[in-house]
Amino acid sequence: MTDFSATRAKFHIPDGIIYLDGNSLGPLPIAAKARAAKVIEEEWGGELIKGWNTAGWMVQPRKVGDRIARLIGAPEGSVVMGDTLSIKVYQALASALEMRPDRRVIVSDNGNFPTDLYMAQGLIASLGRGHELKVVDPEAVEAAIDESVAALMITEVDYRTGRKHDMAKLIAKAHAVGALVIWDLAHSAGAIPVDLKGAGADFAVGCTYKYLNGGPGAPAFIYVAAEHADAARPALSGWMGHEAPFAFDQDYRPGNGIERMRVGTPPIIALAVLDAALDAWEGVDMADVRRKSIELSELFIREVEARCPDLVLASPRDSAVRGSQVSFRHPQGYAVMQALIAPGLIGDFRAPDALRFGFTPLYIGEEEVLGAVSIMEDVLSKRSWDKPEYHRRGLVT
Amino acid sequence: MTDFSATRAKFHIPDGIIYLDGNSLGPLPIAAKARAAKVIEEEWGGELIKGWNTAGWMVQPRKVGDRIARLIGAPEGSVVMGDTLSIKVYQALASALEMRPDRRVIVSDNGNFPTDLYMAQGLIASLGRGHELKVVDPEAVEAAIDESVAALMITEVDYRTGRKHDMAKLIAKAHAVGALVIWDLAHSAGAIPVDLKGAGADFAVGCTYKYLNGGPGAPAFIYVAAEHADAARPALSGWMGHEAPFAFDQDYRPGNGIERMRVGTPPIIALAVLDAALDAWEGVDMADVRRKSIELSELFIREVEARCPDLVLASPRDSAVRGSQVSFRHPQGYAVMQALIAPGLIGDFRAPDALRFGFTPLYIGEEEVLGAVSIMEDVLSKRSWDKPEYHRRGLVT
Repeated sequence: MTDFSATRAKFHIPDGIIYLDGNSLGPLPIAAKARAAKVIEEEWGGELIKGWNTAGWMVQPRKVGDRIARLIGAPEGSVVMGDTLSIKVYQALASALEMRPDRRVIVSDNGNFPTDLYMAQGLIASLGRGHELKVVDPEAVEAAIDESVAALMITEVDYRTGRKHDMAKLIAKAHAVGALVIWDLAHSAGAIPVDLKGAGADFAVGCTYKYLNGGPGAPAFIYVAAEHADAARPALSGWMGHEAPFAFDQDYRPGNGIERMRVGTPPIIALAVLDAALDAWEGVDMADVRRKSIELSELFIREVEARCPDLVLASPRDSAVRGSQVSFRHPQGYAVMQALIAPGLIGDFRAPDALRFGFTPLYIGEEEVLGAVSIMEDVLSKRSWDKPEYHRRGLVT
Repeated sequence: MTDFSATRAKFHIPDGIIYLDGNSLGPLPIAAKARAAKVIEEEWGGELIKGWNTAGWMVQPRKVGDRIARLIGAPEGSVVMGDTLSIKVYQALASALEMRPDRRVIVSDNGNFPTDLYMAQGLIASLGRGHELKVVDPEAVEAAIDESVAALMITEVDYRTGRKHDMAKLIAKAHAVGALVIWDLAHSAGAIPVDLKGAGADFAVGCTYKYLNGGPGAPAFIYVAAEHADAARPALSGWMGHEAPFAFDQDYRPGNGIERMRVGTPPIIALAVLDAALDAWEGVDMADVRRKSIELSELFIREVEARCPDLVLASPRDSAVRGSQVSFRHPQGYAVMQALIAPGLIGDFRAPDALRFGFTPLYIGEEEVLGAVSIMEDVLSKRSWDKPEYHRRGLVT
């Protein structure tokens, strides 16, 4: 049984803040501070270039990948870290399209995070071979899978509403017609149990700065199923994915398995911070996280609907098809969120009208949920969001 | 006049170490420690998601880019940070090839760093349109430029020998036949004066963990000439390069100018460390750096040739065509480097037989050069490299 009071002690949450935005940027794991100092002062400062060997920098992308693998149902040696989620989407999709050379359709849905769609559009334009990105409603994905489809590219949990796809069902349908499936786990890894191998996923990618608490812009991960790992051609064929990076050959030869999905020199300081963040997951069972996340989410929905009648639930009511966030709509959503942040409740806003709140049992409990709803009730009942300063737009909300 | 005793005080070099490997990984700038603590504890820990606005994270890739621009003769607003050099090479080359749709040849040379060649090979295979990567000897580059060439992709300073290309001359030749030019400045930025705008470069890329001391795996940069910046289509079209990232549109629209070369969420901790490292360049004149680097290199060559007859100069003797490193050949180069490192002289080895030594006036002076040669003379005259432990290979040397 996971001890959530123990995990909670591992995070720094500023006094007076209720942080329901771990689905956007996880808070600081206390261990990250000392680990950053160590990698900077002892390893970089003390070992200098030797750190690539003596401090294990060169193998860090695989070692950290293995720690994440455990959380997403992936075998050891099937996940590697690096770059950003956008780049990893591109790698997975480029490989998948080449593995289905006679097909031209990529199916995605309009609940996918835009960067996935953008990267696909960029790849299609580069290839110039008439691929089509078919973006359908989330409910229409299953019906859109037919024998024209090369790849299904889906974010499991919708960044706006928390709606969750049925991974196993979509994979089964896709495989039945010979299509490959790429999963974006940005809102899944560390949020809900994922069983990539059991479900038969072909590729998966994700970021680590949300539920995995790796820090702003932390490195992304990519998973490739064992049966594809030695067959997929890396479109982004960088030296770290070469079979022998330090032979300095002139011709690219892909490394073994997942190694070939490495590209450039790994971001060592960021990987060290992420590695420290992952310490908080030791001894944590994803089934416990899921159970607690549902409890907190249900409590939140119940209380908000009872006490804040101006908010309309935007997330699925059925927790079985919902990730670890809950969204409510409000026509003045941006201003409402600013007004909630002022007294210390941090969630976020996604255009056009969604207020998002993430439930992250590692450091959030019932007390925070009830505290959050009190602030919401107060702000909405007093219409305190209706002030000019809350309507001004910043870059990020 | 640059005060090199002042810059030297800004770096941490471990006691007993002579560090002539800043051309591979720059040493720790002392300011990076406090800056890392600040971005982690105050910004991430204290501001949480708000840091994207309040701590300026969102604009950091441009702000840091502008600081590097000054060192490479690029105007403000023409350089942006992110990803790795490999990814930036891919972006530049993909854009360039699209700008010359009727041409099929990419010219590079066998002194280019392998990842540049690998990324080009990967791009060519993805495009499947019969592009040819013509890799010639460095001396043959100029003659290889003709009207079949879409893009010239060249690393200005050879990572093995320090041989330096004539940037202005190659650009003039390329432009005369309508070819575009991409410069890899990995061994130029912070090493030698570069005048991208004056020379008329079309694209340039570089890493920041060598002469710019940004730390292991620090973010890369890309430069796009003003006349191309609004025309180049980003092949890696991520959300941070979108005209309005937070509108969450489904269709990609490239951002203005250099903004479109951003891809995914920026690596904030790494950018903060790099930003602190760049403080050491305030008040530094690249002409002074160049003059001092040549003085140190000439002293080194003179002393080594007088005192270490087993070493054969692999770098150009003429400092005008040499970057800021000096290489010597030795048939047992790997073992010799291990034997030099043991008593505290850190350079590095590049297959098959090159010993590399970087001269970085910000923190290296005559005393270190003379100390280095004493160690080299001792190790070579006593053949102390001829021990089994120095012949075992690690991952990185």
